[in-house]
Amino acid sequence: MDERGEASDTGWARWGTAQAARELPDGARKLLAQVLDLTPPPPAVPLAEVALPDCELDEVVLDALRHAVGDEHVVTAAPARARRASGMSTPDLLRDRLGRPTLAPQAVIRPADHAEVVAVLDVCSARGVPVVPFGGGTSVVGGLTPAAARHVTVDLCRLDDVVSVDPVSRTATLQAGLPAPRAAQLLAAHGLTLGHVPQSYEYATIGGFAATRSSGQASAGYGRFDDMVTALTVATPRGTVRIGRAPASAAGPDLRQLFLGSEGTLGIITDVTVRVRPLPAQSHHEGWRFESFAAGLDAVRRLAQDGPRPTVLRLSDEIETMIGAAGSGRSDGGCLLIAGYEGADVHPTAEAAAGVLAAHGGVPLGAEAGQQWVRHRFDAPYLRDALLEAGAFAETLETAAYWSTLPQVYQRVRAALLDALPDGALVLGHVSHVYETGASLYFTVICSPGPDPIGRWHTAKAAAGDAIIAAGATITHHHGVGADHRQWYATEIGDVAVDLLRTVKRHLDPAGILNPGILVP
Amino acid sequence: MDERGEASDTGWARWGTAQAARELPDGARKLLAQVLDLTPPPPAVPLAEVALPDCELDEVVLDALRHAVGDEHVVTAAPARARRASGMSTPDLLRDRLGRPTLAPQAVIRPADHAEVVAVLDVCSARGVPVVPFGGGTSVVGGLTPAAARHVTVDLCRLDDVVSVDPVSRTATLQAGLPAPRAAQLLAAHGLTLGHVPQSYEYATIGGFAATRSSGQASAGYGRFDDMVTALTVATPRGTVRIGRAPASAAGPDLRQLFLGSEGTLGIITDVTVRVRPLPAQSHHEGWRFESFAAGLDAVRRLAQDGPRPTVLRLSDEIETMIGAAGSGRSDGGCLLIAGYEGADVHPTAEAAAGVLAAHGGVPLGAEAGQQWVRHRFDAPYLRDALLEAGAFAETLETAAYWSTLPQVYQRVRAALLDALPDGALVLGHVSHVYETGASLYFTVICSPGPDPIGRWHTAKAAAGDAIIAAGATITHHHGVGADHRQWYATEIGDVAVDLLRTVKRHLDPAGILNPGILVP
Repeated sequence: MDERGEASDTGWARWGTAQAARELPDGARKLLAQVLDLTPPPPAVPLAEVALPDCELDEVVLDALRHAVGDEHVVTAAPARARRASGMSTPDLLRDRLGRPTLAPQAVIRPADHAEVVAVLDVCSARGVPVVPFGGGTSVVGGLTPAAARHVTVDLCRLDDVVSVDPVSRTATLQAGLPAPRAAQLLAAHGLTLGHVPQSYEYATIGGFAATRSSGQASAGYGRFDDMVTALTVATPRGTVRIGRAPASAAGPDLRQLFLGSEGTLGIITDVTVRVRPLPAQSHHEGWRFESFAAGLDAVRRLAQDGPRPTVLRLSDEIETMIGAAGSGRSDGGCLLIAGYEGADVHPTAEAAAGVLAAHGGVPLGAEAGQQWVRHRFDAPYLRDALLEAGAFAETLETAAYWSTLPQVYQRVRAALLDALPDGALVLGHVSHVYETGASLYFTVICSPGPDPIGRWHTAKAAAGDAIIAAGATITHHHGVGADHRQWYATEIGDVAVDLLRTVKRHLDPAGILNPGILVP
Repeated sequence: MDERGEASDTGWARWGTAQAARELPDGARKLLAQVLDLTPPPPAVPLAEVALPDCELDEVVLDALRHAVGDEHVVTAAPARARRASGMSTPDLLRDRLGRPTLAPQAVIRPADHAEVVAVLDVCSARGVPVVPFGGGTSVVGGLTPAAARHVTVDLCRLDDVVSVDPVSRTATLQAGLPAPRAAQLLAAHGLTLGHVPQSYEYATIGGFAATRSSGQASAGYGRFDDMVTALTVATPRGTVRIGRAPASAAGPDLRQLFLGSEGTLGIITDVTVRVRPLPAQSHHEGWRFESFAAGLDAVRRLAQDGPRPTVLRLSDEIETMIGAAGSGRSDGGCLLIAGYEGADVHPTAEAAAGVLAAHGGVPLGAEAGQQWVRHRFDAPYLRDALLEAGAFAETLETAAYWSTLPQVYQRVRAALLDALPDGALVLGHVSHVYETGASLYFTVICSPGPDPIGRWHTAKAAAGDAIIAAGATITHHHGVGADHRQWYATEIGDVAVDLLRTVKRHLDPAGILNPGILVP
């Protein structure tokens, strides 16, 4: 079978393949055992052993879907359905480990192109079958688990090509199901890069980036994914939308921005035209140490506001720095800052930025510290697996705020998490996406699982969400809303905007089939 | 009376005040007389002499409006109404000159704050009174002339303050009716600047910039206005929307972008929070000459894509360069490029950019050519007045496209205009807003007025609009849609998006009172 994962368990109850699993460094393991009550879980149920009820869709529906995409692309086998039942949040993984995925689809539908996506939506609209679009399946906010029974998953894995490249305009049109590493490979053949490298890079897809307004580790240099999109094609139950004839326009509201971030609730994005750049001739990363998170924040803000702007700019707080050092054997104390530079000639920029960092009290740690970050840039979700195996609970959440409120948001969210986990928790923080007017804040929580780890986490996560909203920050900077953030999202945008979004949803999706229960409050 | 214009005729049948009027340079006048059939018009009817039917609103409605904003802020005097009957397109000015404004409001309502705007919308929704929001009145696309009888104008002139400044986050919250020069003055007191300097700068307002997705002459350095907005407050008939808690967010679609560019049809924007920057310590502008528009475009694209990026970057085609030279007495031939630099220390950037421009065949014309552009940067609409007085017809239109199609768009629009004006027309072109993936194109048309100048222009403008859409470009890069671009806008976004926009409009404005006939096809 031509599907990702069913044979190898890739992405089942863990991040990525078993072969790619990382070991928890000894130093980190010892430190954890000192502060947490570790409870190693039973072994994960293999994907092949997951039992699901048989597909309960009417044969009439299945026949119509087979007619739309071809018999072999309507898959009802249990492993394919179980693998697509949820995303990659820690609660998702814990449920998968027990062999009890939350709510598996009745079938996995694999259209070949935009026209087939339209045909699938027509069938599902007419028959009232809920539809969950699926790209890389890396959602950590419940974006793949609808509040509806008997849904099908529309897996975009066959929309996996580069449609066209315009080297003069520096744009490329990419199909939605194209995995990020494959997009990089195909663009590199033209000497081009997208520069979008989120932590989910190894498994995420172009359409997922668009549907969730993703932001990559190099966002300081390349911008957010929504900044890169100049045009998009969306299949909706009302028909096809194709918007974007120029880099910028004053022709009414920017309707591209209504579909970017719509998380599959308003339509299925089938391709996007994105700005691309020449592959950088040079790449240089380096580490810096700051005495405190506050001192590091001042330096980061200075670079974000006045430049020179690195391509990658991230600052760990004291705890995250300490845990990272425990893993690597280093123990410099203070806060670690990573600055990365990509371009034709990065050294003038790196030198000028170094002057700013030094002037703000930064101590250079050199290129090896930067290379260490590069080598491990995708490790965190693998380390989460290692933590779960070791008997800890680990999960992340994130937000963004203006610079003037950022320190307060940081303190309030930390305090809320620690209060909600009174028997011991490590709360690690960092800033990894910067703007002139503010930045993101990312938290990693490691705690004892207790007898009900998911329930415990929901309580802590709710406290953090409340703190984020009370502090005036956004409920998510780049993870998206999914099912998990809906209640705070509603507060964030307010009643009038919620009603507006519902109206837009009802208009484009009159049968209410698109990702019900996701995003729209 | 505390209103702009009624006493002095400012903005009546001309751009700005009579005192600020510019003379047409002799060289330009001679050149025009050689190629066009000039027909000087009769003198303009003074504003004070414009006769309008008395206000026909019910006393019940007027009383409710007076209750909402105070008696003295419901103005029914003819000059105040005539002055707000239209914007500043050439057809608008020609109708004004004849003393026959298109469709004057029944009254001018001047709310003091957001709550009063909400109250006015409540009255008008309940009574079915169409509402046209009014900022600087500088629309050149019919954005102030609704397709509805007996409307009122809501003039935001009293919402004219800086609400707050956050120097750490570098943001400022500005009321919608704040005129751009006053905003600049108030921000300068904090050492800050918005950097938004469109040609309408002297009269336009912050709310107008937001409602039309304005782009300024320094957009290469400061970005478009929609890039600058981090948060906004909108009064709608359904209630108040306040969106924007961070520089960026993945919390659903970016609903800010649904109100930016909505041209008063979905609500009245009452304030925006915008990114601001330190006042630049240095400012330097210089001129360059290129052999051809094509050669200049290559150089401009190179700077836009690979940098260093000037703050101002514009390139005139051969005809615009020649006409400009005829005005100034210079006659270098080729194409004039203006590069401007603002910042703490602009010379390294200017030198590096000069290297790129020279490598692409540019010949430096020095700082005086740049200063000349700075001195005359707001002149064009005054020169239009001078052209109209001299008996010519002059108007502008603009678009944007990707770099690879830009030369073709340029040729097709020029050809369409020249074909539609067969008895002689000058079509001047320039690029004044650049992006990595493309640029704007701006056209100035000067032709003989003939017996029916407005009808003649509509034919030519329609031909240009058709050419823009057929070439795949956007119908407007920064002027907006208004009433004039609606038909092409509908083609540009397509049927599904048009229906969506109508649905959004119906939801937020169920009585259909907000700028009827504007924007929404």
